[in-house]
Amino acid sequence: MTRDDARALDAQDPLARFRDAFQLPEGVIYLDGNSLGPPPTAALDRLRDVAAREWGRDLITSWNVNGWMAAPLRVGGKIAGLVGAKPHEVAVADSTSVNLFKLAAGALELRPGRRVILSETGNFPTDLYVLEGLARTAGAELRAVAPDAVLDSLTDEVAVLVLTHVHYRTARRWDMAAVTAAAHAVGALVLWDLSHSAGAVALDLNGCGADLAVGCGYKYLNGGPGAPAFLFVAERHLNGIRSPLSGWMGHAEPFAFEDGYRPSGDIRGQLCGTPSVLGLAALEAGVDLQAQADPAAIEAKGQSLCDLFIAEVERRCGRFGVELATPRARTQRGLHVSFAHPDGYPIVQALIARGVIGDFRAPDLMRFGFAPLYLSHEAVWRAAEILEEVLATGAWERPEFRARAAVT
Amino acid sequence: MTRDDARALDAQDPLARFRDAFQLPEGVIYLDGNSLGPPPTAALDRLRDVAAREWGRDLITSWNVNGWMAAPLRVGGKIAGLVGAKPHEVAVADSTSVNLFKLAAGALELRPGRRVILSETGNFPTDLYVLEGLARTAGAELRAVAPDAVLDSLTDEVAVLVLTHVHYRTARRWDMAAVTAAAHAVGALVLWDLSHSAGAVALDLNGCGADLAVGCGYKYLNGGPGAPAFLFVAERHLNGIRSPLSGWMGHAEPFAFEDGYRPSGDIRGQLCGTPSVLGLAALEAGVDLQAQADPAAIEAKGQSLCDLFIAEVERRCGRFGVELATPRARTQRGLHVSFAHPDGYPIVQALIARGVIGDFRAPDLMRFGFAPLYLSHEAVWRAAEILEEVLATGAWERPEFRARAAVT
Repeated sequence: MTRDDARALDAQDPLARFRDAFQLPEGVIYLDGNSLGPPPTAALDRLRDVAAREWGRDLITSWNVNGWMAAPLRVGGKIAGLVGAKPHEVAVADSTSVNLFKLAAGALELRPGRRVILSETGNFPTDLYVLEGLARTAGAELRAVAPDAVLDSLTDEVAVLVLTHVHYRTARRWDMAAVTAAAHAVGALVLWDLSHSAGAVALDLNGCGADLAVGCGYKYLNGGPGAPAFLFVAERHLNGIRSPLSGWMGHAEPFAFEDGYRPSGDIRGQLCGTPSVLGLAALEAGVDLQAQADPAAIEAKGQSLCDLFIAEVERRCGRFGVELATPRARTQRGLHVSFAHPDGYPIVQALIARGVIGDFRAPDLMRFGFAPLYLSHEAVWRAAEILEEVLATGAWERPEFRARAAVT
Repeated sequence: MTRDDARALDAQDPLARFRDAFQLPEGVIYLDGNSLGPPPTAALDRLRDVAAREWGRDLITSWNVNGWMAAPLRVGGKIAGLVGAKPHEVAVADSTSVNLFKLAAGALELRPGRRVILSETGNFPTDLYVLEGLARTAGAELRAVAPDAVLDSLTDEVAVLVLTHVHYRTARRWDMAAVTAAAHAVGALVLWDLSHSAGAVALDLNGCGADLAVGCGYKYLNGGPGAPAFLFVAERHLNGIRSPLSGWMGHAEPFAFEDGYRPSGDIRGQLCGTPSVLGLAALEAGVDLQAQADPAAIEAKGQSLCDLFIAEVERRCGRFGVELATPRARTQRGLHVSFAHPDGYPIVQALIARGVIGDFRAPDLMRFGFAPLYLSHEAVWRAAEILEEVLATGAWERPEFRARAAVT
């Protein structure tokens, strides 16, 4: 493929107009939107307004007059449209980790007599850590098995299967409908972590019969660093599920100030403390932007970018020992691509020094995300060319590229 | 007291210079900083910078280069100075509700064999709700007793006593040192909720032998709506306490991406998910401002404002059936004052319409907060005068003042 071929693909890109909605520095090819999405201009504007006018002028009245109190369900309802859920099945709250705790605990209660939480080894660590903490607190058992043993480990002991839909390292994608059906066949629930899926691949939670899900606001939804996360509870579970984190925002009448907890029997029952208004404001702008694009078009463009990058990197860099660690089939992966190389860490740092921002996942993965709303085929083509330059010139072999930062 | 008397007090106010550090609308007397503090100008500036430059320009590298990853402990260390703790005993994370769950659960584990969580009826509801949820999840028992029965209910069954230091309705203040000593005498721990104390009354957690505490970022710390909350773990408990919400940020090496949880044996072990960077940025500006003032001077001025308001309201409004619901002794209360009146709700709305912003707590409390950094004696004197006008003219008896908003 030539640069002109990439440009030709861009000329037909139905999502090209979204590029101008983002603030991205000049000269940067940002392939880390799967870790932290860049700011939509509207998010920066919204943050200024919520801070100066709503907080500074309207003060406490903003909870009513500026819709702060309604924000967790309002933004949740908008995210529902991106993930194949009904608006009243999704809320924004807390972090992905905290939401995972809530819903896994709720699932244990929905399956009395079953004490096993099943997951896979190599899952995103916080998922395993949180489930371990829940198991210790609630007297359950976390059983993490190898990915290829997950389906065979579904027994009638399992209360809930917790999987990350798109894997954070390899981008390998679980077949949501098939896995959900297999779990249901033994009476287990499934809790999906959509952190690397939402805003990237087309999702149909209800079409897949999903029970529960959580997801991240600051990756493909571009909600800002540490944005609040979201959670999904299928309508059929809404009235039965209880959150262990039964804070006042989940009470049937938060401002009745009663001593006893009466859970709101809807998605609001999954809220806990006072919502993070500033975080919600930025996230809402990101979600509003995302909602203007067709999810199928987002996935199709993202997969086209992934295909281009895989083909160009293999063609240009295969001779340097770079090996694909991501499934080749579009249906089996999300929108990031990982290549293994023993010197992956300094190579990624050398790329960053040249304006191509990806990241590294130990021990040897160079990870590149292809967010469709602000990346062009030409930019991705150029990123592959720069990777070739870095490898061919040995530019990564400078000592400063080996120095590890706290967050890699 | 005359208006000139109030002005004379202001002329000697060592904290007067702080008023200009806040954004407050013209014509407003803001007596609701105990619910939502107004924005420090520095917080608005900081938010713009963290959004536009750090998020928008430095993108993912900000976790290192702009100190995002260090923020929960950095800001926690600054809050420590406001509450009589050591810097490594405090972290900023999640919401007050979530932090209460973590520390109460940790306390249960620190007191094996004891299953009772003791608290008081009429405590701030989310505290009771969260403890109820924890009790259900962890197989413990929440025992909420009347305030005057708390000390007698301390038995060797009690793992942890959870109290709000300054009561959200009446401002009644517990004697932290005495209560802590009484709990320790039966081998129980104490978890203090400092939501209405931090940034208001001078606190000495370590001087009182406190074990655990949580507190709110958006009241007297002026951290913005839904600001992240803080938590305190006394040094002697740091290595032993475990968080049930064992997310990756509390792991000894979050970026080692191991399958098993290894708790960080310090205050970082109480972190869970990815920190809320935007919320932390605004909170840090509020805390930095607070840290410039002497906590004893803050409390002294606040109590002076409370005394003035109580005296003026009783003098001017006693004939309208307004009754003080807050302790008269400075040492027995925080920095808000509540007056009971059967028509408290519409009276508060009529005050708000005149620019005097307080709030209402059912069934009959008009609540007014006296944050010392931006209020003057003259403004408080004037607020009492306006309350008298509202009562004397019956201005509150208009139908629109009776309409209840979602958040009261």
